[in-house]
Amino acid sequence: TIVAAIDAALSAGPLTGRRVLVTSGPTHEPIDPVRYIANRSSGAQGTALAEALRDLGAEVVFVTGPADAPRPTGARVIEVQSARDMLEAVDAALAPDAPAIDAAVFAAAVADWRVASASNSKIKKRPDGTTPALEFAENPDILRTVARRAEGRPGLVVGFAAETDDVIAHATAKRLRKGCDWIVANDVSPATGIMGGTENAVTLISDAGAEEWPRLTKTETARRLAARIAAHLTGPDHEDRGAA
Amino acid sequence: TIVAAIDAALSAGPLTGRRVLVTSGPTHEPIDPVRYIANRSSGAQGTALAEALRDLGAEVVFVTGPADAPRPTGARVIEVQSARDMLEAVDAALAPDAPAIDAAVFAAAVADWRVASASNSKIKKRPDGTTPALEFAENPDILRTVARRAEGRPGLVVGFAAETDDVIAHATAKRLRKGCDWIVANDVSPATGIMGGTENAVTLISDAGAEEWPRLTKTETARRLAARIAAHLTGPDHEDRGAA
Repeated sequence: TIVAAIDAALSAGPLTGRRVLVTSGPTHEPIDPVRYIANRSSGAQGTALAEALRDLGAEVVFVTGPADAPRPTGARVIEVQSARDMLEAVDAALAPDAPAIDAAVFAAAVADWRVASASNSKIKKRPDGTTPALEFAENPDILRTVARRAEGRPGLVVGFAAETDDVIAHATAKRLRKGCDWIVANDVSPATGIMGGTENAVTLISDAGAEEWPRLTKTETARRLAARIAAHLTGPDHEDRGAA
Repeated sequence: TIVAAIDAALSAGPLTGRRVLVTSGPTHEPIDPVRYIANRSSGAQGTALAEALRDLGAEVVFVTGPADAPRPTGARVIEVQSARDMLEAVDAALAPDAPAIDAAVFAAAVADWRVASASNSKIKKRPDGTTPALEFAENPDILRTVARRAEGRPGLVVGFAAETDDVIAHATAKRLRKGCDWIVANDVSPATGIMGGTENAVTLISDAGAEEWPRLTKTETARRLAARIAAHLTGPDHEDRGAA
């Protein structure tokens, strides 16, 4: 049938049979039942990446916070709210009884902190005009947690870094600190006008060093990164396929 | 022409020539350039009200926080972020040199507090694992500010109240405390299952007492409230039209 032919055409890419996990979007950290702390991630880059990986034939597990961007079609979408929810969903996707994940890309803008003691009821205004104070607790570091797993670590673990200055130095240090394989460093310094826009200015940091990409749309950035992931997972140097 | 005929048909309602201000949606209170505090208002009720007023012929000024709901068509839409931004936009709409507003309905879920000293740069994770604390300052009370204006107060000022218990007592007290004419009290106690849904269970509080409405969709609630506003602005008891 036509549908089957289209399916076959779509799935006959270099990543056919491969499973890739992508996290995307912001997280929301509750203050009380009606208030929360959020961040300005639209989820556009993570969504574009999921679509680019899907287009190369990958089976995509897409763990997303409450993002504005429409969800990618053809991916397994898991919706979460907080950083802790996101880690739980990622852990479940990497569990020993789940189908193996070949690569994991952490594009979500995970909140560094959550509210230390979120309230179960709406915090009311006080008649005396005094105001509450919020204490924070550090959230789990999802990228670092996965990159340093003793068992079930995906063969390729990729993090994102939004940097405003000294991009290569900061991103290189981040790669080592987190223990991931690649860092996709995005220059969001005000001079670039990147923040909130449709383009990215990416430097890919790996053990081979830093590779500056031209300024590209998020879709183009996603396609280029997906192609690099495909090359890594299927190339001659890859451990699964390398000369034994 | 057909377009003109449609325009005429649309505008020939009881509120033709009347101007109504509606606030809607959540507010976002910045923590730093990438993080903010938000609340779970979708903006659906405020948007439905703007559309219902427009359908009765009103010219609608719609001041909205960053809501998920699509903006109402045929209204003058003013987008704001924080509570202070919203008050500024409302003040501008009520300025002596602006066309007079006949009624103002405050349906927005305005944050009670903002962060006392928002940071101009992204707050970084600390290497020692300690966490920041946030101090809050009370936001301006937009409803009360407008309801108690000495000059330029709209003839009808309507507030919303989401209540979980003792709905009539709390909303009646709120009406007096704020100095507004009506309170649209919504029972959001868990037993009603209203929160996050498409229906409202409203009690309209005025100087005539409390009037319980049946459980209605947000669209129906909006139409009923718009009809009441129209009756008030054009009825025999209204100060503009009353027996002199």
